Amino acid sequence: MDTALFIITGASKGFGREIAKNLAHSKLLSDSNLICLLGRDMAGLQETASLAKSTTKKVDFNLKECDYFQLRHDWTFDDILGHLEPQFTRVFVFNNAGTLGKLDRISNLLSSDIVPAMFTNVIGPMCLSSAVLKKFPNSQVFVINSSSLAAIQPFDTWSVYCSSKAAIEMFHRTIAIEDPKIRVLNYAPGPMDTDMQAQIRKEMPQVELKEAFVSMHNEGKLVDPAASAKKLLSIIEQNTFDNGSHIDYFD
Amino acid sequence: MDTALFIITGASKGFGREIAKNLAHSKLLSDSNLICLLGRDMAGLQETASLAKSTTKKVDFNLKECDYFQLRHDWTFDDILGHLEPQFTRVFVFNNAGTLGKLDRISNLLSSDIVPAMFTNVIGPMCLSSAVLKKFPNSQVFVINSSSLAAIQPFDTWSVYCSSKAAIEMFHRTIAIEDPKIRVLNYAPGPMDTDMQAQIRKEMPQVELKEAFVSMHNEGKLVDPAASAKKLLSIIEQNTFDNGSHIDYFD
Repeated sequence: MDTALFIITGASKGFGREIAKNLAHSKLLSDSNLICLLGRDMAGLQETASLAKSTTKKVDFNLKECDYFQLRHDWTFDDILGHLEPQFTRVFVFNNAGTLGKLDRISNLLSSDIVPAMFTNVIGPMCLSSAVLKKFPNSQVFVINSSSLAAIQPFDTWSVYCSSKAAIEMFHRTIAIEDPKIRVLNYAPGPMDTDMQAQIRKEMPQVELKEAFVSMHNEGKLVDPAASAKKLLSIIEQNTFDNGSHIDYFD
Repeated sequence: MDTALFIITGASKGFGREIAKNLAHSKLLSDSNLICLLGRDMAGLQETASLAKSTTKKVDFNLKECDYFQLRHDWTFDDILGHLEPQFTRVFVFNNAGTLGKLDRISNLLSSDIVPAMFTNVIGPMCLSSAVLKKFPNSQVFVINSSSLAAIQPFDTWSVYCSSKAAIEMFHRTIAIEDPKIRVLNYAPGPMDTDMQAQIRKEMPQVELKEAFVSMHNEGKLVDPAASAKKLLSIIEQNTFDNGSHIDYFD
């Protein structure tokens, strides 16, 4: 019997929730499935799980509160992965959790604005990916990074986010060449109508670039996160992408 | 009277030392100069300072032991920058300190292999750059990143280093657009004959890519760090580079 494990980080809302919901109707499901939802808000994870129930296949859920900033204290993924049997046919890791951090020019930032974002956006997904690859050496592993245009293009007042997204994009490119059996994708989901865009409109300083984000919202041009999640899952289903490549929603 | 402050991190050996030594003969010196050498090894800093004495201009040295991993404990740059008067005409920051970290495929790494390297290679130079820009709002500031081919190309068993170098390259690209008055350069100094290359030959696992590094050494093709430092300083002297651009020693 084919079995699949799906690990989705940042699953309590937004794009992570949409990935979970759309998985339930995707061809990625096996005969038996475990969906592991990780995030910082258990109520959100529970809502995601209730929305993501499959109507066709056996799907179990495993919900874990998890904050990558704990990794500064020798925290490990044992409480998340430790109890799982390493027998899944396929394992999918959606490295989706991310934070904008504080948006401001670098001279206005403090180390306390920089360090937590680096744990959430870079160190956390690196350590999770490492733990998964250790734990499931015999599974077909897919690692998907929720990337961003900000990974390849600098944005005014976004130095922390841009740097972190460039790092985690390069991380996924590197694991793609380290072991070609692992399937790795950097997927930029587009400017989605989520809390992150609301935070940009609210908190981004009044630099010229801000207007572009405000306009996208006002003109209804933000991307529907459900549509972007569907596109991502269909790319993975087709499984013809170049390993480690960067694919944008608009491609 | 024109005055200049030069801050060089990773100055106790290797490329940092060569930057310091070659500064003493460069056109970047002003009438009066302070060279701040930061690194983890005071004996090495002292040797760098003794090698870097100028014969033509007034140059003072300020040596500070400094380990960016302290930033995990709310450490700040106050003990390094706090006592300086913010009156320098020009301020040059050489974000040069860096560590390869442990070279291995990601499934063989632990968080303790990842976290310190991210502090040294990413968080440290971000926080130093921020502190300098806060401290010297009226100076002409140059920020130079010791970048790497690994910032733009993934290398097998180098996921930590590649990710960190991609991050700090993007960081410098971002500060270049945040304030065009700041002059920012990502300079890849080439594969230099330093301790870092010795570490690669000694510690890199036996993957196919390793042979390229061993061959470069055996065939005498490693770059002389003094030559690379001279090239870097001449690029800064000419000061015609595109702001935030990536320039390689071989360009």
